[in-house]
Amino acid sequence: MLSKSQISLLTSLQHKKFRREHGFFLVEGYKSVVEFTGSRYQVDTVYHTGAIAPKMLNLSRKINFQEISAKDIEKISTLKTPQEVIGLVKIPIWPTLNYDSLKQRFSLVLDNIQDPGNMGTIIRTADWFGINDIVCSEDTVDVYNPKVVQATMGSLARVNVHYTNLAQALPQIKLPIFGAMLDGENIYNTPFGTEGLLVMGNEGNGISADIERLITTKITIPRAGHAESLNVAIATAILCSEIKRNSMK
Amino acid sequence: MLSKSQISLLTSLQHKKFRREHGFFLVEGYKSVVEFTGSRYQVDTVYHTGAIAPKMLNLSRKINFQEISAKDIEKISTLKTPQEVIGLVKIPIWPTLNYDSLKQRFSLVLDNIQDPGNMGTIIRTADWFGINDIVCSEDTVDVYNPKVVQATMGSLARVNVHYTNLAQALPQIKLPIFGAMLDGENIYNTPFGTEGLLVMGNEGNGISADIERLITTKITIPRAGHAESLNVAIATAILCSEIKRNSMK
Repeated sequence: MLSKSQISLLTSLQHKKFRREHGFFLVEGYKSVVEFTGSRYQVDTVYHTGAIAPKMLNLSRKINFQEISAKDIEKISTLKTPQEVIGLVKIPIWPTLNYDSLKQRFSLVLDNIQDPGNMGTIIRTADWFGINDIVCSEDTVDVYNPKVVQATMGSLARVNVHYTNLAQALPQIKLPIFGAMLDGENIYNTPFGTEGLLVMGNEGNGISADIERLITTKITIPRAGHAESLNVAIATAILCSEIKRNSMK
Repeated sequence: MLSKSQISLLTSLQHKKFRREHGFFLVEGYKSVVEFTGSRYQVDTVYHTGAIAPKMLNLSRKINFQEISAKDIEKISTLKTPQEVIGLVKIPIWPTLNYDSLKQRFSLVLDNIQDPGNMGTIIRTADWFGINDIVCSEDTVDVYNPKVVQATMGSLARVNVHYTNLAQALPQIKLPIFGAMLDGENIYNTPFGTEGLLVMGNEGNGISADIERLITTKITIPRAGHAESLNVAIATAILCSEIKRNSMK
């Protein structure tokens, strides 16, 4: 059984402020917890129900396990349908991003993405396409937000997400910078080459003026119908696919 | 001010059963309501706050307008951040889908899509790519579900969404049937041609066995990284883009 103060600590991790203060975030669901236990992240404790206890034997013995009631799981879960396993994972301190490591491949740049579902889906999609690094503006939604973690479906364990001042960082990276805009060049005719950054902007306002200035190639997914715009995670995926097919030629 | 029985009627429309019983659904937000007023749908009443009343003059005079308090808007809204305008829209009875009308173009087929956000995003994406028709299995989430309507961002006003028994309908449509699977042919090498159906399956289980049997070309978005799968709305968008770029050659 969880003590009152444990429950209070674990539920506080829904808020960025307390995640930073305590240095932990939560990962929900057996599959996602498995992805984290086999990764660079350090899983501190796995809380699980009795029903799923046998499956815990598959996980590393270096982790603390605590069997708790389904009721306690419900208390600390952020999901509508709580899973039977919740992992308490340490927020790592990654080494500073080495710009040279971004050469000879493509990385994503997110300028003020706000919706946790979009952020998580973008990380999952990046993982599918083998994109290892996502560089985010400091005002982009926190990657350890429970809704982001959930939407990544475990991919967060593999993709590196960096937060930085984009206006300062991008000029130093010295790579072609593609930016998704509504008035750019047709992506189906764009030669993407073999390395670069793909910048995606905020859901409502697109790429900020500061960053737009740094873009070397503005690109657009041609519209054949009438929708005013595409969802940003959708647009990111289409562009990742286009970059991928380009590199396979 | 709304009467208790009006509030009760309007909030009941969050449930499919009552939408069918009353024959109405709700559209939230000024922009979306504008899309519906200019469409084939019949907007019965627009509920709005006093603050946004001047903007209502832009809308058709055939609609009933009712100014209500922000508090009443909150009561009938399904959104976390309620908008100032909510439209009560009639559920139309469309003519039976004419299969011949699907020739010489691409349409989507959704086999048991369950997540309202995915469904809405797919409709918005279809609208962007000029896909007019979406044929859904009868167990696909209801298109007038408030979360679906919201996620379409107004595109529902333009895209035709049909519900039918897919196992019976697909053989009668007589078009190439492409199905998104994990073991299909590389989409970057697939000749899509100029007409066909694109089948997308359920979030957890993919395309059902009944429907898989009817697929003429299994296709796959090649994976370069490690994510186990792509979100279904993301996969749909990548495939729509691929079909589009194919038709532009």
